[in-house]
Amino acid sequence: MDREIAAGDFCASGNRRALVERQLAALAACEPVVRAFATCDAAAARAALSSRGPLAGALIGVKDIITTADFPTRYGAYGAEERGPRRDAWCVAEVRRLGATILGKTACTEFAYPAPGPTTNPHDLTRTPGGSSSGSAAAVAAGFASFAFGTQTAGSTIRPASYCGVTGYKPSYGLLPLDGVQAISTTLDHLGIFARSPRDAWYLASAMLLRSPEILPARAPRRILVLDLPVAHEYGERIVELAASLARDGMAVDTQDLPFAAEDFTGLQQELCYWECARILRASAPARVVPQLEALLEPYAAMSIETYAAVRRRRDKHQAAFEALASDYDAVLTPAATGPAPSRESTGDAVMSRFFTALHVPAFSVPMWWADRLPLGLQLLGCLGQDRALAATAQWFFESAEPSGARHA
Amino acid sequence: MDREIAAGDFCASGNRRALVERQLAALAACEPVVRAFATCDAAAARAALSSRGPLAGALIGVKDIITTADFPTRYGAYGAEERGPRRDAWCVAEVRRLGATILGKTACTEFAYPAPGPTTNPHDLTRTPGGSSSGSAAAVAAGFASFAFGTQTAGSTIRPASYCGVTGYKPSYGLLPLDGVQAISTTLDHLGIFARSPRDAWYLASAMLLRSPEILPARAPRRILVLDLPVAHEYGERIVELAASLARDGMAVDTQDLPFAAEDFTGLQQELCYWECARILRASAPARVVPQLEALLEPYAAMSIETYAAVRRRRDKHQAAFEALASDYDAVLTPAATGPAPSRESTGDAVMSRFFTALHVPAFSVPMWWADRLPLGLQLLGCLGQDRALAATAQWFFESAEPSGARHA
Repeated sequence: MDREIAAGDFCASGNRRALVERQLAALAACEPVVRAFATCDAAAARAALSSRGPLAGALIGVKDIITTADFPTRYGAYGAEERGPRRDAWCVAEVRRLGATILGKTACTEFAYPAPGPTTNPHDLTRTPGGSSSGSAAAVAAGFASFAFGTQTAGSTIRPASYCGVTGYKPSYGLLPLDGVQAISTTLDHLGIFARSPRDAWYLASAMLLRSPEILPARAPRRILVLDLPVAHEYGERIVELAASLARDGMAVDTQDLPFAAEDFTGLQQELCYWECARILRASAPARVVPQLEALLEPYAAMSIETYAAVRRRRDKHQAAFEALASDYDAVLTPAATGPAPSRESTGDAVMSRFFTALHVPAFSVPMWWADRLPLGLQLLGCLGQDRALAATAQWFFESAEPSGARHA
Repeated sequence: MDREIAAGDFCASGNRRALVERQLAALAACEPVVRAFATCDAAAARAALSSRGPLAGALIGVKDIITTADFPTRYGAYGAEERGPRRDAWCVAEVRRLGATILGKTACTEFAYPAPGPTTNPHDLTRTPGGSSSGSAAAVAAGFASFAFGTQTAGSTIRPASYCGVTGYKPSYGLLPLDGVQAISTTLDHLGIFARSPRDAWYLASAMLLRSPEILPARAPRRILVLDLPVAHEYGERIVELAASLARDGMAVDTQDLPFAAEDFTGLQQELCYWECARILRASAPARVVPQLEALLEPYAAMSIETYAAVRRRRDKHQAAFEALASDYDAVLTPAATGPAPSRESTGDAVMSRFFTALHVPAFSVPMWWADRLPLGLQLLGCLGQDRALAATAQWFFESAEPSGARHA
């Protein structure tokens, strides 16, 4: 997989024609084993060679819970009939307007439920790419596309980015409109972006949000907070060593335990998600997903609005506390997952992201380390709406990451 | 219009067949002048006579920015081609599952923009029904339907409910999923419900959110806060007199000025809305609405994410302050609009609701008074997620409202 993993950064690419040709060659060679796409059209994607606009030459994969006019949307239920309307979601319409080419619909777990989908991890075909945005992460990791849209309701962008060794960006809640994206949980759903670098991710996001896209320079942070989270992980001493190394370079580095109750860290997002999802899915889930979810969601379907609202109020308080904590720092650092990608029997554990997703703050996963030839991502968190500053900091970490033959080939 | 306005409360109706027959007769007689519907099918609606479930016999109008499988969705652009997918929105699928019958798509202002649509106010055909959920309010007021779905991003449920003399209910943000509803502004959009009474509105909402719908008894409030808002209105002494009367009956009634900066009260929601809308509309607005909106949205299209985020943080602080303020009371009372329905040259002013919509708190408009044979609504606001308790309080106010020949005929 080395050739594909080596496909380059979009902003840095001086020859986008060559980039597209390389991506389509990688797709032809490796998609049969990676299985990143539910549907794709490499022939039509050659239109990218002659497109115009700031995203000209950008091949983009679109998670299969996001509708498109030209590809069917099946929400990961690949045996099922086409379910989604033939209509471009907001994000798809925006990137097309800016010259991008949709390469296809990336495979995801069925209805974004944790049951594994068909996609493999390009770094090790026996491992999961993570979920639920499995194919989006794998398509960028395998060098098939410069970007992919995913979503994150718990950890479905940050975790697969970490497992696949690419950049994942979960913007502040509400920043990127969700029109055309299947709803899972009203106050938790976010659009996510997969890219080769934080600079690329910000280039795409800023193209959609601002008058013209920004090529953001890396910015060395001055103050960093390392959060020790109340869950086990396989990062070993890596983050401690990173903190020590930054401190030696003169950076102000603080370390502290998460100042929130551990049960809220592990459980608050699920309480919100299951209550909201229990209502949304009843009307819209494909019938064969329902049995899997029913046992999980049953207690929440019967839960009162007042009980749900009490969790919302706890979340509001945590948001204010996190804002007060994070506003003193350029970034808050944690592991992006509990370890490297596990076997394909699961899609891994979203616990490192769930709570922060519920807080609505921006998050990046940056490929930082390697463990047995598998990538390990660093998660950077910032204050609500400080996505641009966080992207510049994430780019600095990206550029300072542990070298790897595969990554820098 | 008296006969139509007299059509009764759904929960109180002992004979739902007779209710449906009365509504279809009112529709046949008065829809040509009220023009509440963009599309309706009275013949198909006779299915309501034989439906089953807790919403059997409920005729429901659906705002034309909410998609349905059986009616076209044109987003208020009635000269234009059909735009929406033929697919039931979440709310539509839910009420059908519960036995309700969709009577048709209610007319709205084009793309929910303030320019008046075709609908008249059933109380005075020269007046506006309000907007943007114009037809939804008018359909319930004219007795064509027991319920209607609208939306509220600024004041598009509370204000038309007030102008039309019906109950409007804007739930807590996130409570009712927006799948299938055209997005205007990601962190402001809410589904709204029009009904004959708060009890009816809660019956519909609880049917969608809980295991079984609740027929909520009125609950006399013990503590009330009357907020004096920093904008002119034509309610005269009515709210002061109401407060005095409640106090004489032994209720604890406090009155105070709004403890937020007046410029945030009038402007904060617009800053959020225009920033968000400038991005959403670019991809999805019908072409002929764009010129009207462009001048308005232009400064926001160029506005940075950081400036937008600063407004989000001000909103977060106001939310916490409102929660602290309102949690001591059973309801916070204000006028639901600046006065009775103005002429059809505009859809009126949403200023009494905009700020509270941005705060995400639940709101009811209850028809309380009459001014020159035009209704005036009382707005009740509560803490986030306390929708059920607020509905019970709203029902108490509804039952204690100023008698009117038209309303109680």
